[in-house]
Amino acid sequence: MTALPPFAFARIPDIHFGPGKLSALPQLIRRYGHRALFVTGSTSFVRSEAHARLKEKAIGSGIEILHATLSGEPSPEFVDATVAEFRGKQVDCVVGIGGGSPLDAGKAISAMLPLEGSVVPFLECVDTQKHDGRKIPYIAVPTSSGTGAEATKNAVLSSVGPDGYKSSLRHDNFVPDIAVVDPELMLSCPADVTAACGLDALTQLLEAYVSSKASPMTDALALSGLEHVAAGFLPAYENGANDLVARSHMAYAALLSGIVLANAGLGVVHGFAGPIGGFFPIRHGVVCGTLFGAATRANIDALRRDPVANRIALEKHARAGALLSGEATATIEDGCNRLLQTLDRWIAATGIARLSAYGVTRTDLPRILDKSNNKNSPVTLDRQQMQAILEARL
Amino acid sequence: MTALPPFAFARIPDIHFGPGKLSALPQLIRRYGHRALFVTGSTSFVRSEAHARLKEKAIGSGIEILHATLSGEPSPEFVDATVAEFRGKQVDCVVGIGGGSPLDAGKAISAMLPLEGSVVPFLECVDTQKHDGRKIPYIAVPTSSGTGAEATKNAVLSSVGPDGYKSSLRHDNFVPDIAVVDPELMLSCPADVTAACGLDALTQLLEAYVSSKASPMTDALALSGLEHVAAGFLPAYENGANDLVARSHMAYAALLSGIVLANAGLGVVHGFAGPIGGFFPIRHGVVCGTLFGAATRANIDALRRDPVANRIALEKHARAGALLSGEATATIEDGCNRLLQTLDRWIAATGIARLSAYGVTRTDLPRILDKSNNKNSPVTLDRQQMQAILEARL
Repeated sequence: MTALPPFAFARIPDIHFGPGKLSALPQLIRRYGHRALFVTGSTSFVRSEAHARLKEKAIGSGIEILHATLSGEPSPEFVDATVAEFRGKQVDCVVGIGGGSPLDAGKAISAMLPLEGSVVPFLECVDTQKHDGRKIPYIAVPTSSGTGAEATKNAVLSSVGPDGYKSSLRHDNFVPDIAVVDPELMLSCPADVTAACGLDALTQLLEAYVSSKASPMTDALALSGLEHVAAGFLPAYENGANDLVARSHMAYAALLSGIVLANAGLGVVHGFAGPIGGFFPIRHGVVCGTLFGAATRANIDALRRDPVANRIALEKHARAGALLSGEATATIEDGCNRLLQTLDRWIAATGIARLSAYGVTRTDLPRILDKSNNKNSPVTLDRQQMQAILEARL
Repeated sequence: MTALPPFAFARIPDIHFGPGKLSALPQLIRRYGHRALFVTGSTSFVRSEAHARLKEKAIGSGIEILHATLSGEPSPEFVDATVAEFRGKQVDCVVGIGGGSPLDAGKAISAMLPLEGSVVPFLECVDTQKHDGRKIPYIAVPTSSGTGAEATKNAVLSSVGPDGYKSSLRHDNFVPDIAVVDPELMLSCPADVTAACGLDALTQLLEAYVSSKASPMTDALALSGLEHVAAGFLPAYENGANDLVARSHMAYAALLSGIVLANAGLGVVHGFAGPIGGFFPIRHGVVCGTLFGAATRANIDALRRDPVANRIALEKHARAGALLSGEATATIEDGCNRLLQTLDRWIAATGIARLSAYGVTRTDLPRILDKSNNKNSPVTLDRQQMQAILEARL
């Protein structure tokens, strides 16, 4: 066994995991007070029976619910407007319920409620003001298994358009105080969203696992997440509302993907996702899912050029291949091939859209490449290699 | 793969791990203010060069250091007296530096400083008052690799004697805010303490791994800890001050043992450790180390009586056996045997003392057994089976 690298591992949320755990939410809110600001998407959860039951139980527990509703991905304007509306209302805690978008919106709102002014100067792409980490307590309740935003320390805000960007508000303190992960809430997630979110979680687990910033602790959690992706990915996509066990595997895997990405960073797929998501109205999970196979192939090809120096990264890809394919592999070569075959098979089975379906053309590649990077990838791809990934998925 | 059990996982400290990390302590203290109360043991660390350098750097960073010194294991009287001395002094953060004893003392002091009165009514064995979780921020800096107190939510206080007890002050909020784990601080740990602490950490990892309260998250972390015990246990014992790599493996393993015990509970060895440590002046690590082999044998024997119902627990013991012995094992039977052989070998190699060396005799067994229990063991041993464990190590 190699020597341990030095590492930092930030705090994680207080996790409450399991079918039916949503019913514990009112008593968790009461840890902080009696006035909660719910931040949700505009569609499915708000219309669900689970939401009606939750509201009834919360009101019965003496909780006053305020409500902000988000459409699509959160913009700085949405955060600023919501904070302006609720800043004087003595909110005791913020509760984000939904996919990555409402969860990140809630995270940003909880962080901006105690401050004055707009969120924009605090975003990483502007960075003219430093946040001191003060916030209103924040509870995250995911309804999809994807971004792991219930466990991360950053809120991604989007401004979509020709000069669009995706940028994070980030602080160690912004890790949600509590994550309530109830796989029953994921049962109604449509198949295409299930596939895209699942591939996002898988991308995050693999990118963090092979990351140059990985530690034994993130490795252990990433492998556990990958095991559960292997058990749950296709069944959750194929069986939808009828497979709570598969939904549980994916809910767990997504949660762990958030924990490991927060502590080990990500790779080239996420290095593309920011710019592409800023320029085009493509769901984050679709960007990740569509690029993941080609990017992993490019990484493995690049690593194989120096198999001695890159032994550990190749071994990790091979181990992920054995886990995801469920087949024992005799050699590193074989394990890496299994990984690529499994990703190809899953991407084909779920029919994840190509970039061109959202209007991306060859002429857009230069400006995407100008803003993309390798993040904490174990190997640095050059511009040509990165362009080949995009071309493979146009 | 089996369905996921529902689980809770509490917050963990903000972890700073690696050789030399002690030098980051002053800037971490400054997150909370400028007046720090150090709680240390009375011996080695205080006389070390590392302590002199730390004090110099802290003073240079504008930090005022107050200091409380503990001898042996912390008693309620020590906690009360220290809190009485420093309660009015506007301490911004408490820093515990040392083995499990100073770390738990600092944890209890940080929890009692904001309150009035004695810690006694809050102890689990008294339980006439509930702690509300308020505390002064707490930073834990272990100098031995054993209890994992840098990551647990309870402080064990001891009152040793014929009516003695060990009992915990416990709250999710008492998980240290920050853990600074610097393996250089463990280099000077004497061989006998290294062995006892290492066996304590190993006991905690295995007991949490096979616990009835285990979750996939605690399993992943426990296995990672066991891997590093396999790499570091004997080298740390044998090479002492000359093997920073082995010390790093054990420092990591001990940290993870604290995280998993806080979230999955413990087993019968720790069900004995409280009463024995209350009645007799035996170090906690020695109690655990001396009983661990016999207790694991008793557990495996009991589990083998119904191998179908106990398949998962037996598989886990076997997997731990393969990891610790470093040998691939073909069957569950074989893996369990390897585990027992490895523990026997390590306990013999380190010459951990028997209970009789501390004055425990056959006539003491009834009152020890009256107060002992199985905790979260995967199998319930009856009084006779538990007595046999003690007799094997008299």
